[in-house]
Amino acid sequence: MVEPQASVERLERLTGMLRRRGIILPAFEIHGGAKGLYDFGPVGGRLRSKVQSVWRDHWLSQGDVVEISCPTVTPFAVLEASGHVAEFSDFMTVCTACDEASRADTLLEAHHANPDALSLSDLQALLDDVQPPCPACGEASWSPVAAENLMFDTVIGAGSSGRAAFLRPETAQGMFTTYPAIYRHFRERLPFGAMQLGRGYRNEISPRQGMIRLREFNMAELEYFIDPETEAPHDLSPWASTEVQLVPAEGDAFAASIPTALAQGVILHPTVAWFMARTHDLMLALGVDAEKLRFRQHARDEMAHYALDCWDVELHGSYGWIECVGIAHRGCYDLEAHEKATGQRLRAWRNYPEPKVVEINGWTIDGAKAGPAFRALAGQVKSKVEALGPEASFPLTVVLDGGEEVLVEEEHVKRVQRTETVAGEWFIPHVVEPAFGIDRIIWHLLDHAYEESGSGEEMYVRMRLHPDVAPVDAAVLPLFEKEGMDTMASEVHRRLCGTRGVLASYDGSGSIGRRYARADEIGVPCCLTVDHTSLEDGTVTWRDRDTGEQTRMSVDDAVRRLAAP
Amino acid sequence: MVEPQASVERLERLTGMLRRRGIILPAFEIHGGAKGLYDFGPVGGRLRSKVQSVWRDHWLSQGDVVEISCPTVTPFAVLEASGHVAEFSDFMTVCTACDEASRADTLLEAHHANPDALSLSDLQALLDDVQPPCPACGEASWSPVAAENLMFDTVIGAGSSGRAAFLRPETAQGMFTTYPAIYRHFRERLPFGAMQLGRGYRNEISPRQGMIRLREFNMAELEYFIDPETEAPHDLSPWASTEVQLVPAEGDAFAASIPTALAQGVILHPTVAWFMARTHDLMLALGVDAEKLRFRQHARDEMAHYALDCWDVELHGSYGWIECVGIAHRGCYDLEAHEKATGQRLRAWRNYPEPKVVEINGWTIDGAKAGPAFRALAGQVKSKVEALGPEASFPLTVVLDGGEEVLVEEEHVKRVQRTETVAGEWFIPHVVEPAFGIDRIIWHLLDHAYEESGSGEEMYVRMRLHPDVAPVDAAVLPLFEKEGMDTMASEVHRRLCGTRGVLASYDGSGSIGRRYARADEIGVPCCLTVDHTSLEDGTVTWRDRDTGEQTRMSVDDAVRRLAAP
Repeated sequence: MVEPQASVERLERLTGMLRRRGIILPAFEIHGGAKGLYDFGPVGGRLRSKVQSVWRDHWLSQGDVVEISCPTVTPFAVLEASGHVAEFSDFMTVCTACDEASRADTLLEAHHANPDALSLSDLQALLDDVQPPCPACGEASWSPVAAENLMFDTVIGAGSSGRAAFLRPETAQGMFTTYPAIYRHFRERLPFGAMQLGRGYRNEISPRQGMIRLREFNMAELEYFIDPETEAPHDLSPWASTEVQLVPAEGDAFAASIPTALAQGVILHPTVAWFMARTHDLMLALGVDAEKLRFRQHARDEMAHYALDCWDVELHGSYGWIECVGIAHRGCYDLEAHEKATGQRLRAWRNYPEPKVVEINGWTIDGAKAGPAFRALAGQVKSKVEALGPEASFPLTVVLDGGEEVLVEEEHVKRVQRTETVAGEWFIPHVVEPAFGIDRIIWHLLDHAYEESGSGEEMYVRMRLHPDVAPVDAAVLPLFEKEGMDTMASEVHRRLCGTRGVLASYDGSGSIGRRYARADEIGVPCCLTVDHTSLEDGTVTWRDRDTGEQTRMSVDDAVRRLAAP
Repeated sequence: MVEPQASVERLERLTGMLRRRGIILPAFEIHGGAKGLYDFGPVGGRLRSKVQSVWRDHWLSQGDVVEISCPTVTPFAVLEASGHVAEFSDFMTVCTACDEASRADTLLEAHHANPDALSLSDLQALLDDVQPPCPACGEASWSPVAAENLMFDTVIGAGSSGRAAFLRPETAQGMFTTYPAIYRHFRERLPFGAMQLGRGYRNEISPRQGMIRLREFNMAELEYFIDPETEAPHDLSPWASTEVQLVPAEGDAFAASIPTALAQGVILHPTVAWFMARTHDLMLALGVDAEKLRFRQHARDEMAHYALDCWDVELHGSYGWIECVGIAHRGCYDLEAHEKATGQRLRAWRNYPEPKVVEINGWTIDGAKAGPAFRALAGQVKSKVEALGPEASFPLTVVLDGGEEVLVEEEHVKRVQRTETVAGEWFIPHVVEPAFGIDRIIWHLLDHAYEESGSGEEMYVRMRLHPDVAPVDAAVLPLFEKEGMDTMASEVHRRLCGTRGVLASYDGSGSIGRRYARADEIGVPCCLTVDHTSLEDGTVTWRDRDTGEQTRMSVDDAVRRLAAP
């Protein structure tokens, strides 16, 4: 997407300011840097942790969600089961002149509307046809296109006992691998959710767009487990009069409330609607500009095959509309995949409205004979045998799920014929997953809050961040660093920092106007100035970032106001 | 260390409970697990984030400390500069019978008092002599002992343009690589600190001792930058009457206050003493048992060669005394190492008390000629030439720090002879680093809080966690799940969860006594019961975990009490 020149220049000024003021900086810069890796610096670090904290509180307040924390180093088997080993890849080609790797679809962006939807062979054909120049050296000589897995790989342990592993591509898998503990924790009652904040990794072939495409990023995901046969209990009425922008998979974009879009059948599932509504609130609580937020539904061919509905929250900023949150109904895909790979039960129990009387007329195994005969496979043989009708006759060859053929002799089995009362059944819960890219959200908070006025040398910058995420809560400024104003300002500064949840900065150098400007630039919501009057009556002036209004108040009042939750 | 049987059994019960209740669990267990990797489960996740939050607030409250956040994936060059590529290793040997890798010192623990201090050749000799059996297979046939680097390695990028990288072994390097931004942020005024919470990685050869030796762990480090020639401003008087247990490098353990130990010259630096005192407060605020905390000073041969003083905080628990925090005066080692490797200035400016008049009599380079001649090396040539006396004559071969020999001709240089007024000088700040192992601290919080009474079937467990770190703040219990008590309890539960900073659980199943026990076991500080009276007058009973006392109060009062910071 080509942006107008003014936007490009604004983006450059914003990026420059973020770097100069220690908000977001290229990582390892003194060592020459590393593409796709960023630091949150001395100002940005707290912005990040405040955003995480607002996110955490928002979901915990739901009352049926817990937080977990799992390792980032993940054994091969886990990500093989999840499908990432097979499918977490991009199509890559390497410049034969300079050895620089590129994404094939990126090279072809000017020549196709949607190159990342092309198959390998279509991409290859288009690449051969177009012969785009290498962005690094300008030559146009490319190796054959191939799928490149995007996980960082490593080895757990040393020597030949080392095991292949990856850095997790998402935090979500942790909620599936610990599902038994979560199910137990909630005393086996659906619905419930588990969430995790932490790092995710994606070894991008050629990162670009600053904070949008990172190789290591801050994620926050929530997996909400539901019974697909139970009606969702969510009350959407509080959102009945809140219109949001919706871009459905088919038809035109429109504005409607989330409950209306659900009633119209555009949003396909009430739990998806619930998380869209709650996510909308969260975005606004963080300070996202409501006009620059829209929900975009995935088209059928854009979703994973198992997904039942999927909406992105897109935020608009310097890079156009960018996906920052995905809210997906994933069906039973994930738990089923891990169940298949491990043989562990990852299910929930559902009681029937009335116990059922079931007639059992068929076969089971005779443990005493079949156990020694089939050993580890005995459990699988048992379920195959129990699935046979009364007419089966032995010896009989059964085929197990893993493909093994097993000969079952008459002595291994016995007839069963009885009725049983069954109270309920095991089933695999469905999952609705809101997944958040914290870095992308932070980027847009900054982009939306960044306000320039004037121009050239006279340009003034005010960062209108929400106080809940502002990296510094107050700046304490002695009018002059003498006559005791510095001492009193230091005391006020110390007192504020000693107040739980409050971080203040002390700034004594330059004119007051210059210091206001420094504080406004990084979004400090208020400046407290200690002047001559302060020394006499113990007051300070409170200057509001957004209005510029000044109010004189006692230090006690200022502390109280900042400490209020 | 051999522990008495009772302790071993208590440890097993504690570990079992942590796992059963979803506090700490072996990671990826459904996939067979992975040694040295643990999950914080549905209860432990919040314990972890509350501990991190108390840690963060404690240090930010100092007013001269900022938080940053850097990537875990770290380019080779950074960790080569820091010394980790060369020195972050253990001595390994591999069983030639079963291929299992072991640490050589661990195999020899029964045969030497301190095998991890032995050199490679001494370890080899002792191994040859003792021939210990392999812990995996029992054979005694070992490959030659060799140093094994303990960093997880990976590659940034794809194809031949990929760059070697590691997962960071500590978070500290981030504070050094971003030093220029931190220095700028603090407007170039020392002292100041920067800290980071996050994952660290150590690919242990054979992990053991549960949460004590992890391959991926939660760290929290603070680097405090000081001017070695300025007197430290710390006021230690608030700690004058707090005795702590001290184990000095030489002489016997003793109890004294930290300021006394500093005055006696046992603690070698006031900033180290300051961080010992502040760390002591933090440990107690987290709920560490003061009787199970001691400070142990490193012996000269135990410290890194550059360290000026180093004290561990050791906590006592099921594994004996364990290092959980290290407080080290690291001199100028780290910044100097990165400065050498990168050629970037990682320094601070110090004004002289009075400007100095300096006579310059020697040589400098002639940029117009020397620039094209020496190109990238011109800066280094300049400093070598300027270090020469007036008697130098050209052509002259100078040797650069990297070992390159450069021939400097007469045309490349010019004589300088003048006086200059110099206001101050650049110097490399010294660093005092308190480094925290968050998992080890959490382990000891649990170990110290875990209280058993009774025995066998009658055993009762109460986890006396500090309310600031308790994973659940309150349990809401309807006396019966009927007659509206369940509805009212759900409302109280929802209201508590909706209160910022409060997480409540709802438990409706089993007798009240059983439910109290479940809450006590994971350290919920209070249970709020909704009974028949509640329905009439809107009160609940507040039962205190530690005393068992019950108080009837209005729901409003209960919410207020829990919301209080």
